Amino acid sequence: MAKVNDKFELSCPFPFTDYPSITIGHGGGGKLTSQLIEKIFRVFFANRYLDAGHDGAVLEIEGLKLAFTTDSFVVNPLFFPGGDIGSLSVIGTCNDLAMCGARPLYLSCGMILEEGLGTETLSRITCSMKKAAGEVAVQIVTGDTKVVDRGKGDSVFINTSGIGLIEHGRMVGPAAIKPGDAIILSGDVGRHGVAVLAQREGLQFETSLVSDVAHLTPAVLSLFAAGLEVHCLRDLTRGGLATSLVELAEAAGADLVVEESRIAVSEPVQGACEMLGLDPFYVANEGRFVVLLPQSQAEKALSLLKAKEVSAEAAIIGAVSSSASGRGRAVLKTPYGVERLLDRLSGEQLPRIC
Amino acid sequence: MAKVNDKFELSCPFPFTDYPSITIGHGGGGKLTSQLIEKIFRVFFANRYLDAGHDGAVLEIEGLKLAFTTDSFVVNPLFFPGGDIGSLSVIGTCNDLAMCGARPLYLSCGMILEEGLGTETLSRITCSMKKAAGEVAVQIVTGDTKVVDRGKGDSVFINTSGIGLIEHGRMVGPAAIKPGDAIILSGDVGRHGVAVLAQREGLQFETSLVSDVAHLTPAVLSLFAAGLEVHCLRDLTRGGLATSLVELAEAAGADLVVEESRIAVSEPVQGACEMLGLDPFYVANEGRFVVLLPQSQAEKALSLLKAKEVSAEAAIIGAVSSSASGRGRAVLKTPYGVERLLDRLSGEQLPRIC
Repeated sequence: MAKVNDKFELSCPFPFTDYPSITIGHGGGGKLTSQLIEKIFRVFFANRYLDAGHDGAVLEIEGLKLAFTTDSFVVNPLFFPGGDIGSLSVIGTCNDLAMCGARPLYLSCGMILEEGLGTETLSRITCSMKKAAGEVAVQIVTGDTKVVDRGKGDSVFINTSGIGLIEHGRMVGPAAIKPGDAIILSGDVGRHGVAVLAQREGLQFETSLVSDVAHLTPAVLSLFAAGLEVHCLRDLTRGGLATSLVELAEAAGADLVVEESRIAVSEPVQGACEMLGLDPFYVANEGRFVVLLPQSQAEKALSLLKAKEVSAEAAIIGAVSSSASGRGRAVLKTPYGVERLLDRLSGEQLPRIC
Repeated sequence: MAKVNDKFELSCPFPFTDYPSITIGHGGGGKLTSQLIEKIFRVFFANRYLDAGHDGAVLEIEGLKLAFTTDSFVVNPLFFPGGDIGSLSVIGTCNDLAMCGARPLYLSCGMILEEGLGTETLSRITCSMKKAAGEVAVQIVTGDTKVVDRGKGDSVFINTSGIGLIEHGRMVGPAAIKPGDAIILSGDVGRHGVAVLAQREGLQFETSLVSDVAHLTPAVLSLFAAGLEVHCLRDLTRGGLATSLVELAEAAGADLVVEESRIAVSEPVQGACEMLGLDPFYVANEGRFVVLLPQSQAEKALSLLKAKEVSAEAAIIGAVSSSASGRGRAVLKTPYGVERLLDRLSGEQLPRIC
């Protein structure tokens, strides 16, 4: 154990004792990640922005409403079907801004390079970032590069942080979710995680598995442009659809009830998941999100989403109901009429998929 | 070499061929870092914000002037005399915002943890971030945590990005530097780099060597509060005083002439540098900066800086003169009347000091 002086001990009253050390599962986006955040980060950094449990912070500076978010990318391998760490690092952070209802404007780029990384590889990744940024007219305006010794990193890690402008008056987030809201899912789930895993493990499937990584900004902004009263948005990254629904239900204190039969899973993803023993509802996506808004506006939202390629297969998968206990739950109704209570991802299903 | 398809080749026309792979020196903040930025990052990300060559981007969003900056921290060891990776990650990014003439408001925190990191260590680091944030009333409002497998990271890397508010009308940056400006240095140089190195290598010196890591925001904002016409600010991190002067001279297209006898180096730092074969002018600092402003305002600036502990030993070390060639140079006048042209740090003098 590290030597801790008295003064430090006194002012750090919350040692995280459930686990003496960090495990791979703490990065999985599920239960352990949630514990780590609650027991360390939110204890020390407590403020209303973090407490909102959103994909980013919504700030008001001198009357201007901005979204601010950060994400580090450690995906392995660096290149996978449908994308690479560069495109992912730009799209992922832009998507987090979009989930705050913001238009992405500016990104930062912090690179941690491992000694020995090929400069051609770095060029390809940087080029890919540039292209992804161009797709939603976001600019990479500030950066930093560090190099660590061979064996102390893994080729390249990228952090992107982003600033987005909120151009409407709505407060979008878990706190705005209301009983009666429809839950819309933008497309089939599980592609990204399975595509990265297949690439990493060198698995061959009959049909090609391609990541769903894609910008969600245009689809999201079309909802606001139409004046729809969007209550909450969430992209379904680490932990997948199921973990996201649980997080939203708990943060909102309402029940999110979805029907299994309405949630699309492509045949290649279904097949790969069966082979690998994965539940596609817990597999990460990088181009899928849920929208929660009043039932009366669901059809209009659906038609706007279907007009964008990224959400052409959008579907209403369920609705929000009030929680008897006050503690929100995510409930999956199976085709056999059984109700299954969803829980956060346990452990680490698929490490380093983003 | 990675397989590159034709389409990619076509759109990535700038392979970085000087070095086939990244070396430790590319992270040193000197010549190699500069080459890497010029040949890869600025080629792909070219825009007026990056082109300004500043410590952060100065953005104008709907009439509001904001500074935005990012920094990743990979310091080894995590704890060193005077600070740790946590305090450094907050102070370093706040200082970069201050160097843009901004008041730091909000930070993000992206952590990359290595499997096996002690959670008590993580708590201590997080606690240290909280304290450092409290010192300048900055809030950590959004975060992200990733975990990488054992041997694919090094305990913990932290990225902090920051947003600051610019509350005055001045454009602060290399482009505003003018012949006739005084150059003020805020204190003695070299403490941080030497303190980290000594801790890492287990070196014992007769006197204790403590990092200079400290918030520069209050000192900087006192200059603006007094209405001083600050032209440029730069904190002397990787590459030290000498590299910073060269960068500023080149960006400004003017000569920065400083007198060696006016640049303070403490005895312990001088002694350690002699023993280790280091030039203290190239050693990194985390609590030192230079101010460039009109000569007529230099005494007033000096008295304001001396009123703050962090810059109590501030001194005028030189002046800006116009460049005959148009290509700015940094010139060191030695006590013997010799003029020595300064160059950027070559290679990596002290790896992973921030």
